[in-house]
Amino acid sequence: MKRIFFGLLAITLALTCLSPALVAQEAAEEASPPPPYENYEQFTEDKPKYTEFMVNNLWIVIAAALVFIMHLGFSTLESGLTRQKNSVNILFKNVFIICAGILTYALWGFNSMYPPGDWLISNVFALGSPIPSSLAEGTEQAQNLTSDYSTGPFTYWADFIFQAMFAATAATIVSGAVAERVKLSSFMVFVVLLVTIAYPITGSWKWGMGWLHDDGFYDFAGSSLVHGVGGFAALACVMILGPRRGKYASDGRMRPIPGHSLPLATVGVFLLWFGWFGFNGGSVLSADPAGVSMVFVTTSIAAAAGGLAAMFLSWGVLKKPDLSMALNGVLAGLVGITAGADTVSVMGSFLIGLVAGAIVIFSIIFFDRIRIDDPVGAISVHGVCGIWGTIAVGIFDIAGDKSLLVQIYGTLAICLFAFLFSLAVFSIIKAVMGVRVSDEEEFKGLDITEHGIEAYPNFQTVSET
Amino acid sequence: MKRIFFGLLAITLALTCLSPALVAQEAAEEASPPPPYENYEQFTEDKPKYTEFMVNNLWIVIAAALVFIMHLGFSTLESGLTRQKNSVNILFKNVFIICAGILTYALWGFNSMYPPGDWLISNVFALGSPIPSSLAEGTEQAQNLTSDYSTGPFTYWADFIFQAMFAATAATIVSGAVAERVKLSSFMVFVVLLVTIAYPITGSWKWGMGWLHDDGFYDFAGSSLVHGVGGFAALACVMILGPRRGKYASDGRMRPIPGHSLPLATVGVFLLWFGWFGFNGGSVLSADPAGVSMVFVTTSIAAAAGGLAAMFLSWGVLKKPDLSMALNGVLAGLVGITAGADTVSVMGSFLIGLVAGAIVIFSIIFFDRIRIDDPVGAISVHGVCGIWGTIAVGIFDIAGDKSLLVQIYGTLAICLFAFLFSLAVFSIIKAVMGVRVSDEEEFKGLDITEHGIEAYPNFQTVSET
Amino acid sequence: MKRIFFGLLAITLALTCLSPALVAQEAAEEASPPPPYENYEQFTEDKPKYTEFMVNNLWIVIAAALVFIMHLGFSTLESGLTRQKNSVNILFKNVFIICAGILTYALWGFNSMYPPGDWLISNVFALGSPIPSSLAEGTEQAQNLTSDYSTGPFTYWADFIFQAMFAATAATIVSGAVAERVKLSSFMVFVVLLVTIAYPITGSWKWGMGWLHDDGFYDFAGSSLVHGVGGFAALACVMILGPRRGKYASDGRMRPIPGHSLPLATVGVFLLWFGWFGFNGGSVLSADPAGVSMVFVTTSIAAAAGGLAAMFLSWGVLKKPDLSMALNGVLAGLVGITAGADTVSVMGSFLIGLVAGAIVIFSIIFFDRIRIDDPVGAISVHGVCGIWGTIAVGIFDIAGDKSLLVQIYGTLAICLFAFLFSLAVFSIIKAVMGVRVSDEEEFKGLDITEHGIEAYPNFQTVSET
Repeated sequence: MKRIFFGLLAITLALTCLSPALVAQEAAEEASPPPPYENYEQFTEDKPKYTEFMVNNLWIVIAAALVFIMHLGFSTLESGLTRQKNSVNILFKNVFIICAGILTYALWGFNSMYPPGDWLISNVFALGSPIPSSLAEGTEQAQNLTSDYSTGPFTYWADFIFQAMFAATAATIVSGAVAERVKLSSFMVFVVLLVTIAYPITGSWKWGMGWLHDDGFYDFAGSSLVHGVGGFAALACVMILGPRRGKYASDGRMRPIPGHSLPLATVGVFLLWFGWFGFNGGSVLSADPAGVSMVFVTTSIAAAAGGLAAMFLSWGVLKKPDLSMALNGVLAGLVGITAGADTVSVMGSFLIGLVAGAIVIFSIIFFDRIRIDDPVGAISVHGVCGIWGTIAVGIFDIAGDKSLLVQIYGTLAICLFAFLFSLAVFSIIKAVMGVRVSDEEEFKGLDITEHGIEAYPNFQTVSET
Repeated sequence: MKRIFFGLLAITLALTCLSPALVAQEAAEEASPPPPYENYEQFTEDKPKYTEFMVNNLWIVIAAALVFIMHLGFSTLESGLTRQKNSVNILFKNVFIICAGILTYALWGFNSMYPPGDWLISNVFALGSPIPSSLAEGTEQAQNLTSDYSTGPFTYWADFIFQAMFAATAATIVSGAVAERVKLSSFMVFVVLLVTIAYPITGSWKWGMGWLHDDGFYDFAGSSLVHGVGGFAALACVMILGPRRGKYASDGRMRPIPGHSLPLATVGVFLLWFGWFGFNGGSVLSADPAGVSMVFVTTSIAAAAGGLAAMFLSWGVLKKPDLSMALNGVLAGLVGITAGADTVSVMGSFLIGLVAGAIVIFSIIFFDRIRIDDPVGAISVHGVCGIWGTIAVGIFDIAGDKSLLVQIYGTLAICLFAFLFSLAVFSIIKAVMGVRVSDEEEFKGLDITEHGIEAYPNFQTVSET
Repeated sequence: MKRIFFGLLAITLALTCLSPALVAQEAAEEASPPPPYENYEQFTEDKPKYTEFMVNNLWIVIAAALVFIMHLGFSTLESGLTRQKNSVNILFKNVFIICAGILTYALWGFNSMYPPGDWLISNVFALGSPIPSSLAEGTEQAQNLTSDYSTGPFTYWADFIFQAMFAATAATIVSGAVAERVKLSSFMVFVVLLVTIAYPITGSWKWGMGWLHDDGFYDFAGSSLVHGVGGFAALACVMILGPRRGKYASDGRMRPIPGHSLPLATVGVFLLWFGWFGFNGGSVLSADPAGVSMVFVTTSIAAAAGGLAAMFLSWGVLKKPDLSMALNGVLAGLVGITAGADTVSVMGSFLIGLVAGAIVIFSIIFFDRIRIDDPVGAISVHGVCGIWGTIAVGIFDIAGDKSLLVQIYGTLAICLFAFLFSLAVFSIIKAVMGVRVSDEEEFKGLDITEHGIEAYPNFQTVSET
C-alpha cells in the first residue's frame, strides 16, 4: 500500500517538476483584446454583440444557480446515507462549506486559480488576492465586465460566481466520507484550507493555463479537478481518521451501517443530476447551441448508463436490486462524463457511463475490504470515477487531439497532490487539535453531543395500519 | 364495462384506419430549407441569426432540465403517498425509469416518434432507430444542428434531450398506480416496452406529423400524448393487477390506506409544478416572448384554480380540508391546461383548471367505488384530466381553428391505444412471469422482500416534548 | 410598547399624507413610446430588437419559476421547524397561499400595485382590476406585449407572472409565525386580504411609481416591500394570537419547542437561496449582464456572510453550533441584501450580510424575551432584517444617490402600514370568527383535529443498529 503511494508520489513529483521544462513554454496565444467600447453604455448599444454577450452571460449565471443546488443534493444525499443521530452534524457542515467556500474563494481562491498576473512558481502556483469590490474599482468598467483575465463571453462576476460554486463542491465531497466521527471544528479548518489553497492550485494547472494546460491535458468540467480532488482528499482524511466504531469487527468481518433515509438520499441524487446540467452545461463557457445541447445529451446518457450498469451489476452480485448502488451508479456516470462531455460521441458517453457504473460497485466493495470506511462511497464515486473519466477522454475523444498518456499523468498528478496535501494538512490538524470525536460522542451521535439537538425532535410515529 | 371498452375500441380502430384515407394526404408544407451555411463556424458569424438560435436553443435545454426535475417530483409524490414499507421499491422504479427511458428513447423511440424517413404504416407507425452518435456522423454538421427532421430553431440534440425527458414521464405515471404490489422485474419490462414502443406511436400521430396532425388535432404539450397515455396505461395495469390486499373488505367497504409522508408528497407537487414551466413553456419550441410568457401564465392560473377547486370541493364533500386532494387538484389543473396552454385565454385557463380540480375529486371517488385501486390517484389526475384538457381545447380555443369533434376522437384514440397496448402487453407479462408479488411479500412490504433494506433504517424517534 | 407604535404610527401617517404634497408632483418622465410595429409578426422580424427582447423576457420567466420554488422552500422550512402534529396544516396553508395569491393578484392586485390608469388617492392608493384575459383583448397585440403600463423589455405576461410569485411570498412569511395555533379558515381569510389589498398598496408606493418612489426611496427587490411587509404583518398577527400553550411557563421561563425535522428545514433554506437568484436576479428586470451577474455575486456573498456570522455568534452565545441559527443567518443575509443587491459593492454586500446574521440572533432572542412566540423566527428574519437591509442601502450605496433618511422613513412607513393593516384586519377576523384553535385542538395537533390525517401515517421505525 505505502510503496504504491510513494512510488506514484515520486513519479508525479518528477513529472510535476519536469513537465514545465520539457514542454516548450509557449505562451498561450493572447485572445484578441476586448472591443474598444469606451464604456458599458456604448457596448449595450452594439446590439448584435451585446445580445450575444447577454445570452452567454445569462447561461453562466443560471448554470451557477444549478451548481449551487448541487450543494443541497450533497446535503440530502450525505445525511440520507448516514445515521439519524449524525444528521444535524452533516447538514451543519454542508451549510458551513457553501458559506465559507464562497467567501474564501472571493478572498483568495479565484485569483489564485486564474492568475490575473504573474505566477509565484511559474505555471504551478500563483498567490491569491481578493476579487475587486465593485464594477468600477481600479479599472475601466467595460474591461471589468469582459473580465480581468480573459476576454470571455461573460462578465467577470458571472465567471466568479460560477467558479465559486464549483470550488465549494470539492470540499463538500469530503464531508460525506468523514461523516459520523470527524470532529466538527477540525473538519471546518480542513475544508477551508482545502478550498482556499489546494483546489485553486490544481485548478490553476489546467483551467488557470498552468503546466497541465501547456501539456495538452484535458478536463472539461472537472472529473479530476473537482471530483478527483474531492475524492482523494477524502481518502487521505479517512485513512487518518479510521473507520467508524463497530464497522469492522475484530474477527475481520464487515458490518454494513445503512443510512437513515433512502428517500432523502434519492432526492439528493436527482438534485445532483439536475445541478450537473449547470456543472457540465455551464462549462461550455458560453451558450453555444452545439456545445451546450451536446453536453446535455452526453451528460444524461452517461448518467443513465451508469445507473443501469450499477443496478444490474449489483443485482447480480448482491442478489438484490440495491437502491444505494443504483444511486451511486448514476453519480458515477455523471462524474465519469464530466471530463469529456463536450468531446466524446453519444456512444462514447454511453460506454463511459456504463464502465463508471461498474467501477463504482467494485471500488466500493474494494475499499470496504481494505477497511477504508467511507459511509457514502464518495472516494469511489468521485475519486476513482474521476480518474476513469479523465482517462476516458484519451480513449473516446472524437476531436482526436488528446493524448492518453497526458490524461493519465495529469489525473494522477492532480489526485496525488490532493491526497498528499490532505494527508499533510489533516495530520497537522490531528496533532494540533485532534480530528476525531470521543467514543462516547460517536456512540451517542454527533447531533446530541456537538449540537445539542436531534435531527427529528418532536417526531412521533403512529402504528402501522 | 367490457362492452363500453370494446365499443370504443371498434370506433377508434375504425377511425384510426380510415382517417388517413378520409383526410387528403396533403404533405405538410415543407419548411424552408436550412440556411446555406457551409459549416457551423460560418453560421456562428451570422450574428442576428445565430443569436436568435442561441436563445431558442438555450431555453429548450433549460426546459429539458426542468422536465427532468419532474422525475424527482414523481418520485417523492409517489413514495410520500404510499406506505413506508414500499418506499425503496418506488424510488428504485423511478430511478430505473429515467435511466431506461433516456436510453431506449435514444436507441429507438425518438426516430420512431419523429420519423426522419418513411413510415412503415403511413402516418400511423414508423420504425425507430438510434440517434446519430455525433455531431458529424453521416451528415453535415450544420444540418445536424438544425436537425435531421425539421428546420427548427434549435439543435437536433436539444430536441432529443427535451423529448427524452418527456418520454420517461409517461412511464413514471404508471409506477404510482401499480405501487405496493407490482413485481419489480415485470414492471421494469413493461415500462421499457411502454416507453419504447407505445409512447412513440401515439406521439407520432400528432407530434410526428401523423394522421391526427393531418386531421387538425391539437395537443400542445401532451394532455393526451403524455398524461393520457400514462394514465390509461396505468388503468389497464391496475385492472390486471387487482387492488392491494385489505383495500376492499369482503363486505364491500373501502378502507383508506394513507401514505407515509405528506411532506414528501407536497415536495413532489411543488417540484412538478416547477418542472411544468419547462414542460409547457418548452413546448413553445422556441423562446418566443409572447408564447413562453403566455404559457407561464395560463399554466400557473390553471394550477392555482385546480388547487382551490379541489380544496374547497373536498372540504365540502369530505368535511375536512384535505391536503392530498388539494395536491391532486393542483396536478389536475396542470394536466388539464397542458393541451391548450398556448391557445386559450387567461379566463379559459382558469375555467379549465377549475373544472379539472373538480373532476379529479369525483374521478378518484368513482374509481375507488368500482374497486380500481390507484394509490396515488394517477388514473384520475393524468388519464381523466388529460382527456378533459384535450377536449377543453375544442371549447376554449381562442385561435378558432380547433374542432371539438377532432379533439374528442383524437384523445379517445390515443388513450384507448395506450389502454389496449398495456392491457395486451401486461397480460402477456402476467402469463409469462407474473405481475404481482406474493401475499407475504405484500404484507411485509416490498422494501424488505425485494430489496432487502428499509427506507428508513437507523431511524429512531424521540418522545414528544 | 404601545406608545412607541402609536408614535411611529402618527409619524408615518403624517409622512404618508404630506409626502406627496411636499414632493413636487413631477410626473415620471414617460419612457419613449413602444416601437411602431404594426403587429407582433413585424416585431419578430426586427431581429436585433426582437432577440434582445427575447433574452430579457426569457430571464424574467425563468426568474418567475425560481421565485415559485421559494414557496416550496417556505413550505419545508416552516414544516421542518414546527412540530410533526401540525405539519399537514402548514403544508395545506402554503399550497393555499400560492394558489390564492396568484388568482387574487390576477383579479385585483397587479393593477392595483402598478396602476395602469389614475390613482384613487394620488400616488398612495389605486383601485385594482383583473388583468386582460388574452393577448389581443382590448388593445393591439404588440402594445399588450410591451405591456400596458410601461415599455419594459419583456411582455406584460412575463411581468405579471414574476410579480404574482412575489406577491404570494409576503403572505407565506406570515404562515410560519402563526403556525401551530392559528385557525385555518381565519388565516385563509387574512392572507387573501393581505395579498390582495395590503401588499399592492405598499408595493405601489415604490414599484408602482407612488409617493415613496417620488421621494427617491430605494428598495431593489423588496427587503421592505416583500419581507418587511410579511414580517410585520406576522408580528401583528402573533401579538393578537398569543404564544403557543406551554411556550412560556407561569414562572416566566421560556421553553424551547424544537421543530420536527431539521433536514426538511435545511432543504427549505437551500431552496430559498436557490429561488433568491430569481428573486433578486429577476428584479434587474432585464438580462443585462452587468446587472444580473453583479446581483448574483452580492446575493451569494451576503447569504454566506449571514450564515457564518450567525453560526459563530450563536456558537459563542449558545455554546453550541446551532443549525437553526445558521439557517436563519443565511436567510437574514438574503433578506438584508435584497434592497440593495444591485447598488452596493461586494464588500458592502459582505458587511450587510454579516450584520444581518448578527441581528437575527439577537432579534430572535429579544422577541422570545418579550413573549412574542414566532416558531420559525419569521419576524426577525424578514421583518427586522428587512428594515436593516433597506436602511443599509443608505449606508453602502455606491451610486451615491440614495438618502439614508428617506430609506429610514420609507421602510418604517411600509412596515408600519403592514403592521397596522394586519392588526386591524386580524382583530376584526378575531371578533367575527375567532383566530385561534381550542386548547384541545392545539394539544392534539391541527393535523388530526382540522385535517383528520397525520403527516406521517403508516410510518414505522426500526430499531437502531
